Amino acid sequence: MITLYTWTTSNGRKIAIMLEELGLQYQIHPVDLSAGEQFAPAFLEVSPNNKIPAIVDEDAEGGPLTLFESGAILTYLADLSGQYLALTGAQRYRTLSWLNWQVGGLGPMLGQLGFFGVRSPDRLPIAIERFREEANRLFGVMDRQLQKHLYLSGDEYTIADIAAYPWTVTATTLMQEYVLPMLETKPSVRAWLERIGQRPAVQRGMVLPKL
Amino acid sequence: MITLYTWTTSNGRKIAIMLEELGLQYQIHPVDLSAGEQFAPAFLEVSPNNKIPAIVDEDAEGGPLTLFESGAILTYLADLSGQYLALTGAQRYRTLSWLNWQVGGLGPMLGQLGFFGVRSPDRLPIAIERFREEANRLFGVMDRQLQKHLYLSGDEYTIADIAAYPWTVTATTLMQEYVLPMLETKPSVRAWLERIGQRPAVQRGMVLPKL
Repeated sequence: MITLYTWTTSNGRKIAIMLEELGLQYQIHPVDLSAGEQFAPAFLEVSPNNKIPAIVDEDAEGGPLTLFESGAILTYLADLSGQYLALTGAQRYRTLSWLNWQVGGLGPMLGQLGFFGVRSPDRLPIAIERFREEANRLFGVMDRQLQKHLYLSGDEYTIADIAAYPWTVTATTLMQEYVLPMLETKPSVRAWLERIGQRPAVQRGMVLPKL
Repeated sequence: MITLYTWTTSNGRKIAIMLEELGLQYQIHPVDLSAGEQFAPAFLEVSPNNKIPAIVDEDAEGGPLTLFESGAILTYLADLSGQYLALTGAQRYRTLSWLNWQVGGLGPMLGQLGFFGVRSPDRLPIAIERFREEANRLFGVMDRQLQKHLYLSGDEYTIADIAAYPWTVTATTLMQEYVLPMLETKPSVRAWLERIGQRPAVQRGMVLPKL
């Protein structure tokens, strides 16, 4: 049995979607970020960075395995199941390029746009503009790629799409004043959002954890 | 033959270090970021995100392989050589947790501290403080882990260390006013910096590309 430590954020939902896609048996352990539960000593044992998502796979080969960081967890679950990431060959690493692009670029930059543009009581124009521009550039990169392919790393749905979808779709609501105008000129990103959003497992994962 | 597209930045040096560690035959193609060469159309063909590092491996199985994003390139080179990342099992994914932690956390947060705290003509106290605090928290996570282990993902040197070293050592010089006080209370990070910095391949990689 896999236990998923998660909350209602985009990084958590990446893993909820993946587990739903795979149909694996798992249980959810909610970590209420609004109550600061990510700083509890017991959670630190699971996640040394005090962040969700994290998983414990009790049935891992060699004994229970604890992992943190959504990119690592997606890779583990893909290798475990043989799904959504080629096990070998060029396509495996092309998918990892786009997965890392989400983890190191799209995620952190949208995260900062959300902080400075929406959550922070101080609206710092220089900071907002920096992250708005970078988000727009990144969505442009995504649109160019999706003009050529149905999915981020080619014509197959992979963990790169599972990583990028929750961040992108959530940005269109939580940061709509910034993000909706950007996407007006990026029809291939909009079509991809619709394509991914139609998947039943994605729909189920995007409302987890149920509170 | 592998071609490394790179410049004198921490993300580029991760790959230079890895190639030096492996003793693989490679050539460097400098991409002068100060001259905006990352935006040249020819480079976009190699790196769809207009960033270094990127590689082309002419001898990859199945034909020439182009990859971008340092985390994906490190994983590819590790799998190609069977070094610095376990090929299977729990330890592989533990290393990927720490690699993703660097790619999605330490790198972007130090990058923003460098921008707001050093490079930006406007010194915005709220932004500086946000990224100073987050950098300090991340170095604290690193120090706790390095109190228990010689290297980031355990007692073996891996691509997680290769990813974190250039960012950490460069922060102690380019952002010294912020980072040196943080590291005063983190002796295990300082000892790790010294341990990694003694490796000849690291010393060679940290001065590439030669200009």
